[in-house]
Amino acid sequence: MNSLILTTFDWVPETPRGYVRDLRVRWALEEAGLPYCVRGTSFRERSTEHFGYQPFGQVPWLTDGDISVFETGAILLYLGERSQALMPADARSRIEVMSWLFAALNSVEMAVLPWSIFMFTGDTETTPGRKSLDNFLVSRLSHLEEVLAKREWLTANFSVADIAMADVLRLVDRFGGLTDYPACKAYVFRATSRPAFLTAYADQMAFFAAAD
Amino acid sequence: MNSLILTTFDWVPETPRGYVRDLRVRWALEEAGLPYCVRGTSFRERSTEHFGYQPFGQVPWLTDGDISVFETGAILLYLGERSQALMPADARSRIEVMSWLFAALNSVEMAVLPWSIFMFTGDTETTPGRKSLDNFLVSRLSHLEEVLAKREWLTANFSVADIAMADVLRLVDRFGGLTDYPACKAYVFRATSRPAFLTAYADQMAFFAAAD
Repeated sequence: MNSLILTTFDWVPETPRGYVRDLRVRWALEEAGLPYCVRGTSFRERSTEHFGYQPFGQVPWLTDGDISVFETGAILLYLGERSQALMPADARSRIEVMSWLFAALNSVEMAVLPWSIFMFTGDTETTPGRKSLDNFLVSRLSHLEEVLAKREWLTANFSVADIAMADVLRLVDRFGGLTDYPACKAYVFRATSRPAFLTAYADQMAFFAAAD
Repeated sequence: MNSLILTTFDWVPETPRGYVRDLRVRWALEEAGLPYCVRGTSFRERSTEHFGYQPFGQVPWLTDGDISVFETGAILLYLGERSQALMPADARSRIEVMSWLFAALNSVEMAVLPWSIFMFTGDTETTPGRKSLDNFLVSRLSHLEEVLAKREWLTANFSVADIAMADVLRLVDRFGGLTDYPACKAYVFRATSRPAFLTAYADQMAFFAAAD
C-alpha cells in the first residue's frame, strides 16, 4: 500500500506544463524508488481543504499517513531523510546538501523568478529596478558557473539539492538565459538526462494531458 | 570555549544595516542561548577563502568545529536541531516548522525581494512584468494575512520559521508595504519585541558601527 500521496493541480494551462513543482517531488520519488500515488486538486477552484494543506493555494503537498508536508524544499528534505539516494546520512554531508538546497531555492531561484516573469510577460523595458534584478541574476549565475565548471553535482553525490538547482536552472534555459553559462547548461543537461527525471517529466505531462 | 563562529561582513553601508542576514542567525542563537562569536570578512574585497565558505560571496556562514554551513535557511535548521527553543524534536512538529521555514524563504521572500528592489531603486514604472510581480506579492501577503489573523506564531510555538518569516516581512514593513495587512504587521511587531531579536539587532548595528 502506498502511504506517500503527492497532490498537484488536476489540470494546468499549456505554458506551465513540465514546470509545475510537483515535478521536483516526482523526480525525487523516482530517484529513491519510493512507491507513491498522485492526486489532483482543482486548479480552477481552490477549496478550503486545499488551503488547509497548502496555505498559499499552491501545489504540491505530500501526505504520509497523518503527516502532511508543504513547500517543495521541505518535501525534498523529508524524502531525503528516507533515502540515501537523495541525501547522505552522515552529519557533514547532510548539512552540505541542506546548504545547497537552500542555495537553489533562496539564492538562485529568487534571482531567476523575477527574470522569468519579465520573459513570460514579454517585458523589455529597462527600468532601474529591472536593471538591478538582471544584475542580480548575472551575479548568481556567474558564481554558480565557477562552481559547476569543477563538479559533476553540487556535492559529492547527486542529491535533492541537484533536483532543486537543476529545475531552477531549467527555467532560465527555457528562455535561452544559459547561453553565457556553459557549465550551468551542461549541468542541466546531465541532470535532466537521468532516467528518474525523464519518468517524472513524462508522468507530469501525461497527468495534465489526461485532464484536457 | 565557543565552537560556533558566525561570519558576516566586516562593514556594510548604512542602508542594509539592521537587515544583513547574519541578523537571522544572531536572533536564533540568542533565542537558544547558545554561546557564539562573530567574525568579519571583507565587504570590499571578497577573498577566495570567502567563496570557499559561501559560493556566492554573500554572508553569513556558520562554522561549528570542522562543520561549515552556508545559507541562512540551512543555518537555522542546523541550529534548530540543537535547540528545542528553535524547533521541536517530534517528527510531526518538526516537519511543520520546516514547511513554514521554506515558505518564508521560497514562497514569501521570493515575492518580497523584487518588490523591495523596486522600492530601493525608487522605480515607479508600471511595466507588464512589474505588474505581475506586484500581484505576486499581494497574493502571498493576502494568504499569509489569513493565517496570521488566527495565530500567534506560524506553528504551535515560536520557531526558526518565525525568525525567517518575521525578518522577511520586516523588509516589506520598512517600505510601508504592510499597511493593508494588519495581522502581518502585528506579527512583525510581536516577533521583533522579543528580547532575543532586540539583542541581535543591537549587536548587528554595533558591529557595523564599530567598523566605521
